Amino acid sequence: MERRHFLTALGLGLGGGAFATPVVAQSRPEIRWTMATAFSADLDILQGGAEFLAGRVATLTAGRVNIGLDPTRSAGSGARILDDVGTGAVPMALTASYNALDKEPALAFDTALPFGLNARQQNAWMYHGGGLALFRELLADHGVVPFPAGNTGSQLGGWFRREINTVQDLNGLKVRVSGLAGDVLKRLGAAPQNTPSADLGRALEQGTLDAAAWVGPHDDRRLGLHKAARYCYYPGILEGNAQISCYVNRQAWERLAPEDREAIDAACADANLWVTSRYDALSPVALKQLVAEGALLRPFPLDVIRAAYRAAEEQLDALASGNPWFRKIHDSWKPFRDDQHLWFRIAESSFDRFASLRPGDKGRN
Amino acid sequence: MERRHFLTALGLGLGGGAFATPVVAQSRPEIRWTMATAFSADLDILQGGAEFLAGRVATLTAGRVNIGLDPTRSAGSGARILDDVGTGAVPMALTASYNALDKEPALAFDTALPFGLNARQQNAWMYHGGGLALFRELLADHGVVPFPAGNTGSQLGGWFRREINTVQDLNGLKVRVSGLAGDVLKRLGAAPQNTPSADLGRALEQGTLDAAAWVGPHDDRRLGLHKAARYCYYPGILEGNAQISCYVNRQAWERLAPEDREAIDAACADANLWVTSRYDALSPVALKQLVAEGALLRPFPLDVIRAAYRAAEEQLDALASGNPWFRKIHDSWKPFRDDQHLWFRIAESSFDRFASLRPGDKGRN
Repeated sequence: MERRHFLTALGLGLGGGAFATPVVAQSRPEIRWTMATAFSADLDILQGGAEFLAGRVATLTAGRVNIGLDPTRSAGSGARILDDVGTGAVPMALTASYNALDKEPALAFDTALPFGLNARQQNAWMYHGGGLALFRELLADHGVVPFPAGNTGSQLGGWFRREINTVQDLNGLKVRVSGLAGDVLKRLGAAPQNTPSADLGRALEQGTLDAAAWVGPHDDRRLGLHKAARYCYYPGILEGNAQISCYVNRQAWERLAPEDREAIDAACADANLWVTSRYDALSPVALKQLVAEGALLRPFPLDVIRAAYRAAEEQLDALASGNPWFRKIHDSWKPFRDDQHLWFRIAESSFDRFASLRPGDKGRN
Repeated sequence: MERRHFLTALGLGLGGGAFATPVVAQSRPEIRWTMATAFSADLDILQGGAEFLAGRVATLTAGRVNIGLDPTRSAGSGARILDDVGTGAVPMALTASYNALDKEPALAFDTALPFGLNARQQNAWMYHGGGLALFRELLADHGVVPFPAGNTGSQLGGWFRREINTVQDLNGLKVRVSGLAGDVLKRLGAAPQNTPSADLGRALEQGTLDAAAWVGPHDDRRLGLHKAARYCYYPGILEGNAQISCYVNRQAWERLAPEDREAIDAACADANLWVTSRYDALSPVALKQLVAEGALLRPFPLDVIRAAYRAAEEQLDALASGNPWFRKIHDSWKPFRDDQHLWFRIAESSFDRFASLRPGDKGRN
């Protein structure tokens, strides 16, 4: 074969003085994957995180690993996504693991628990406290390799049609929530619902829902929830963070070259940071807009928070005693959480508590 | 040229059935860089972050981009590191930008300010609030391209030989601090010092220092500061986070292929997440050890915090009126900070405040 012809066949070309400097040439197959997401189109920060992740992998691999987002595969239920990635129907997906609680209750720890970790504490546990290794082990049985790939930060407590002054006010209330929060609300007498996001505004307006917790100010405002139910409760005691997970089919993962695995691993970690910092940057702006548009901010009464805390602890203990995987992960998570709360009580929370006072209150003589 | 021979010359080899699937071959020069760091060897999490960063780049590029840590270039002053990277004496370094305040006071915003942002808020401002773009512009004049590449989170307020009950107790106190914290302490009557870490324990024991703020429980314990000065004050009002920055020489950066730039960019973002979550995971453990070993935890009195806040605001205003770059960055940072505090007051801080109560206080009827 003639030399020039052969180089062209390899796709190397001849420009750029490639022979003037030492080279390491790589020969790897092109990879074209589809990525499903569990997020409806209105969640633009999470969709943006999916695009960021795919773009990062493409650039890192000089276009060789191409991950395409398939909109027809989006907004599926979390349980179906777990199956689809596990069987290889799609090689990759972004989801919130707690959407598949019916299959694996322990997946709650991979997203959020009532009175659980905040976003930073979740990362500390996942990357340096043994959390991620536990989910790798749990999901290996489902044919899935998971990665943290985003976090919404602390969510809002929810939009209520009426004020909540006592625990009794929750009685019989139809409240849209996600994950284990539903079990906690049930213990408090409410009736948890799983209404799709597109129907939330109308259901609140018509009173088929009494309240709805969706995400935070940015996403909630895009759905217009504040126009349908004006009382906005905080803090998001039932969801102090919500981690997004990237699932990769196990066989597909094992076939990847080391540098392609690293590209996906790095892109997921970057997406984790990108999504959290984007929510953090946009939340205050949206919160001010919500208030200007008529939202009435209300803190949950302390009695309600305490009752919810007790119900959440009971629920975790009940699940831990009935499910070996839940117990195994709970045994890692709970002491880690308690230590984090100790440290945050001394350092982060006491700094934030003063820093987040109104400027006039901070400078007072 | 014979085909097999030619492939070997290109370093492609012939194994692995490379011709059975479509391939995109890349031909890029090998890169061997040295990375300096500003951190003494005792800072094992920051050194670990440097190794993580270099390892990530090596794996992403299949070993083609090799970044070696040069211990003889470590622990240099921040100002020298800025010059060394700018002139190309080293292509890359990890540092805390506020070590070069003498050259550029505005670099304080690239690390930490008294009563400034916490680690998450810093990321929100850097990645999505315009912060990073400002430092890219500022440091272009110095021949440097900067990246956030780590964060210690909120630090401890410092180790004091005697209790601090009033602002007057700070008068004449020789206190080791970093960055703009020194100017704030000077306004409160103290005498800020810049003692190297290796001398801190002895200086506190001998009383040539009255107090020292170093990092947090993990790093402070490794230096044995609690044995030399038992009163550990919190929160770290003068350093609610400390971002680590990666500097890359501008010409070296511009010569890189797009995928190599992306590898460095991704590795820096990952190191940012890795370092923060590692500090978060190890801080509670070290704090408990410190207390077991005799440290006496004390909150700063509210009057001291308020006086320090007023002094910090005066100092920022003075710098902003005297330095155009400081003013330009301050004008972006300050409204962003105030918005972040509004959002954290409602959501993150109010969640953390309850969550970080002692379990008995949370569940009380």
